[in-house]
Amino acid sequence: MIQLDFEKTGGLIPAIVQDMKTAEVLMLAYMNQEAFERTVQTKKATYYSRSRRTLWVKGETSGHVQHVHEILVDCDLDTLVLKVEQVGGAACHKGYKSCFFRAVQGGELKTIDQKVFDPEKVYR
Amino acid sequence: MIQLDFEKTGGLIPAIVQDMKTAEVLMLAYMNQEAFERTVQTKKATYYSRSRRTLWVKGETSGHVQHVHEILVDCDLDTLVLKVEQVGGAACHKGYKSCFFRAVQGGELKTIDQKVFDPEKVYR
Repeated sequence: MIQLDFEKTGGLIPAIVQDMKTAEVLMLAYMNQEAFERTVQTKKATYYSRSRRTLWVKGETSGHVQHVHEILVDCDLDTLVLKVEQVGGAACHKGYKSCFFRAVQGGELKTIDQKVFDPEKVYR
Repeated sequence: MIQLDFEKTGGLIPAIVQDMKTAEVLMLAYMNQEAFERTVQTKKATYYSRSRRTLWVKGETSGHVQHVHEILVDCDLDTLVLKVEQVGGAACHKGYKSCFFRAVQGGELKTIDQKVFDPEKVYR
């Protein structure tokens, strides 16, 4: 098995999630060794939730799972890029396609995208 | 000024660096408040080096600076995407365009890109 460097960052490494077709960055999440292995085995993105302190299959509540088509590893073996097919067309729990739906413009944050779904209807 | 959440992650937040033209993910680096403010002001990517414990203008040694054209902020205010013009065509200190030059294939890491420069000639 591939040896990633989980030690440097206290057991969790960041995974950048990119839409495999558009190359848009959808989100960033964290993985421990087990989340990485499950993602490789199941090809369904599985992360470690820092707030809930547990493994988390992306989309288990919303249905917006991520099918993983490619995993890239960086030069330091401590960061991943996942190229995914995003079911439901939205990765962000706030209803946007990408968690990065705001831009820094003139010293303020401006929303630059539109919601794909209503979070109150999806997370009940 | 924009209030990002540096507290949750101990003072540093990850910045995903993306080529503004190809959308390829080039690297991931970390920023503290000062690195973020300098990046916004100078439009030259400035990070915080965790190993050297100091601010770090990307490219100050190699000349491979990053001109920042857009900064996106995520829903939790604790991760950034920088869309950059990468001078020299390579972001990785190992000589590749992207730090993510290897892919997980059949339980191993396979190099999927070619070097743009020779690190021994650039970092002397």
